[in-house]
Amino acid sequence: MRLSRYFMPILKENPKEAEIVSHRLMLRAGMIRQQSQGIYSWLPLGKRVLDKVNAIIREEQNRAGAIELSMPTLQSAELWQESGRYDAYGKEMLRIKDRQERPMLYGPTNEEMVTDIFRSSVKSYKDLPLNLYHIQLKFRDEIRPRFGTMRSREFMMKDAYSFDLTREGAEHSYNKMFAAYLRTFDRLGLRAIPMRADTGPIGGNLSHEFIILADTGESEVFCHKDFVDFDIPGESTDFDSVEGLQAIFDKWTSLYAATSEMHDEAAFNAVPEGERLSARGIEAGHIFYFGTKYSEPMGAKVQGPDGKEHFVHMGSYGIGPTRLVPAIIEASHDDNGIIWPASVAPFDVVVINMKAGDQACDDTCELIYAALTKAGKDVLYDDTDDRAGTKFATADLIGVPVQIIAGPRAVANGEVEVKDRKTGARETMTIEAAINRFVA
Amino acid sequence: MRLSRYFMPILKENPKEAEIVSHRLMLRAGMIRQQSQGIYSWLPLGKRVLDKVNAIIREEQNRAGAIELSMPTLQSAELWQESGRYDAYGKEMLRIKDRQERPMLYGPTNEEMVTDIFRSSVKSYKDLPLNLYHIQLKFRDEIRPRFGTMRSREFMMKDAYSFDLTREGAEHSYNKMFAAYLRTFDRLGLRAIPMRADTGPIGGNLSHEFIILADTGESEVFCHKDFVDFDIPGESTDFDSVEGLQAIFDKWTSLYAATSEMHDEAAFNAVPEGERLSARGIEAGHIFYFGTKYSEPMGAKVQGPDGKEHFVHMGSYGIGPTRLVPAIIEASHDDNGIIWPASVAPFDVVVINMKAGDQACDDTCELIYAALTKAGKDVLYDDTDDRAGTKFATADLIGVPVQIIAGPRAVANGEVEVKDRKTGARETMTIEAAINRFVA
Repeated sequence: MRLSRYFMPILKENPKEAEIVSHRLMLRAGMIRQQSQGIYSWLPLGKRVLDKVNAIIREEQNRAGAIELSMPTLQSAELWQESGRYDAYGKEMLRIKDRQERPMLYGPTNEEMVTDIFRSSVKSYKDLPLNLYHIQLKFRDEIRPRFGTMRSREFMMKDAYSFDLTREGAEHSYNKMFAAYLRTFDRLGLRAIPMRADTGPIGGNLSHEFIILADTGESEVFCHKDFVDFDIPGESTDFDSVEGLQAIFDKWTSLYAATSEMHDEAAFNAVPEGERLSARGIEAGHIFYFGTKYSEPMGAKVQGPDGKEHFVHMGSYGIGPTRLVPAIIEASHDDNGIIWPASVAPFDVVVINMKAGDQACDDTCELIYAALTKAGKDVLYDDTDDRAGTKFATADLIGVPVQIIAGPRAVANGEVEVKDRKTGARETMTIEAAINRFVA
Repeated sequence: MRLSRYFMPILKENPKEAEIVSHRLMLRAGMIRQQSQGIYSWLPLGKRVLDKVNAIIREEQNRAGAIELSMPTLQSAELWQESGRYDAYGKEMLRIKDRQERPMLYGPTNEEMVTDIFRSSVKSYKDLPLNLYHIQLKFRDEIRPRFGTMRSREFMMKDAYSFDLTREGAEHSYNKMFAAYLRTFDRLGLRAIPMRADTGPIGGNLSHEFIILADTGESEVFCHKDFVDFDIPGESTDFDSVEGLQAIFDKWTSLYAATSEMHDEAAFNAVPEGERLSARGIEAGHIFYFGTKYSEPMGAKVQGPDGKEHFVHMGSYGIGPTRLVPAIIEASHDDNGIIWPASVAPFDVVVINMKAGDQACDDTCELIYAALTKAGKDVLYDDTDDRAGTKFATADLIGVPVQIIAGPRAVANGEVEVKDRKTGARETMTIEAAINRFVA
């Protein structure tokens, strides 16, 4: 992508409405724009990151056997009356009347709808286990949306729903998502710690929040510090192995970890003092097992091997992509801007032409841009006539992992400079060597 | 994907609410499910097709230089008051009040919002031309939603918006989208004919609808029959060439073609009688040039090379993925079900195990499934214990282009049958040959 043809409205000033660093950097880098209170557009740079986050979430959901569909944003009130949540859900639910005066709502979550889909077509235990997920917009009419897309009203959520014949089966389904979430956060460059959590309006009796430690987190959390070094389940994890997944779950729940709602002071104090971690955290994912809470009132049942009908045991598993993007920034930035993990960087590399219009610089940059693009890399080419200093500042701000800098002096020697955004290390090398670093 | 682990709720009976063949087949194949009037879930099989349609749209938008972002679904009424459309738009606009009683709406289109994004950050002609698009849900509260996702209330739209300094520039931008749309429909396996069209609530004075000829189409259309054989712009089309794109536009508008609203009986009668085509059509895309209709009231202007401020010339370009899926089915099906063009097929191939549980059949199918999956193909493996007849019917119904059929007799000879869904042609060949057909 040539920057001269791109749309990346960088802000020079620090936006004063932004209280936390991720919000500030997302606005400054032209990633998002607020359209109304708590409702954001994802501008092209932000959209690229969001797409990469979603792609990783999707891959790990699929790996764990979940199946993607897409449920609509608007739901009928009727469905929520069946579960009893229409009245129970407070003002955070955006209630709507259509032109026929039928009561509708903008879905804040999808337990009811997915249960309706399930009951309409699944009749036998032979079709279980089943896990259906979608990545879809949700709306929660927060009284105080804030921190940019960290707590917005219209937001994106990946929500998965599992259906099993028995509680044991449901626990295996729960463990699949538990392991998938560990892998997902790890691939996003985040260390998330699963903590026993309150179940809130979703309900149920088994629930974990995945918490990313960050000073700007909204929750107070307490855990054993060893979590920081625990191994992540590998790519070859067998999601069909009941024992294997149980072992992962057991390991990751063997030490103390709880959010403030579930905090047990006495249990925490039993952790040796030097190993206690009391910190702030960002809730990045939340998983629930809630048994037959929805299947009973909504009549979602299957015939079991015993020939009788059984209400299915369900769980739901949420992760918020539009919240993960700022969470990644909270965890990875410096004074100059964002430092993207390679897995979610909007571009793999930025080619900086220090003197656009200079024939040698132009030719060199075009050569590199073409070679890396051909190699399948996402390349941003800063071909604008901005000053070199502005270009460096922009490249640092938007956090692309590698910068290839072509200035007249180096280019005259057939060389360019390659800068690592994270370490700041710069290395001068031949043009060919710079290309080979990516193509090899 | 193993069918035994997939979620594809096939209907055996013809759903009686479906009036047209695409709606019937989408319901029967378990592609969609209606959640409330005119509001659909896309079940896994449907979601796969929708994703492939969107991927093609996206590739062609990017090729034409458009840049993707993502605007939210909910908009503030204020923005629409600026353009004057808040009152002008009728009951099709879903109006909402949030918990603070602020008037909002579910966006039926995004001219206002994108103009707001533009005016907040683009100040100079040097940043033009610019074309921003997103693929996002929209809501239009149709009084009579029907034909499944062909005319639904919540639907997906790719809408692009171009910004230029001059009318000439805007015409080039218009021609880019014109050519991109021709390419898009062609890649979707559709022949779409651009027809002069009414501009409706979007406004402006230059507009084309892209019409797919189909007996079940809602519009009456009139055109020269030669359109059916016109060449589609190639992959190497230079979208920067003003003349090149103008030539494409001129060619494709050189013969008579109009929807009923714009129909000119006298002009149509001037077409030699044997070359007149009077038919029904499905509106699959709609492009508009509307000059300064939004930029003037909303103050979207840039500094020109003359140092003065100019209101930008705009166009908008819509294409409906959730409507294209049924349109493709209308154009491509037979009595047994859907016949997907390869470019949008939910799976590239379905492997049918005629006798699941038979060791030789199982081994053969597993071998083929693994080899094709490894080769990057999307493979559906029917490993269920349904009867062979049911499996054949399902495979035909869901329209996967190629079926590889493994029955005990053929497998004993080291062979399988390969069936082409479209022609029905069957060929017996070695297992290796069947694999090589895809891997080669």
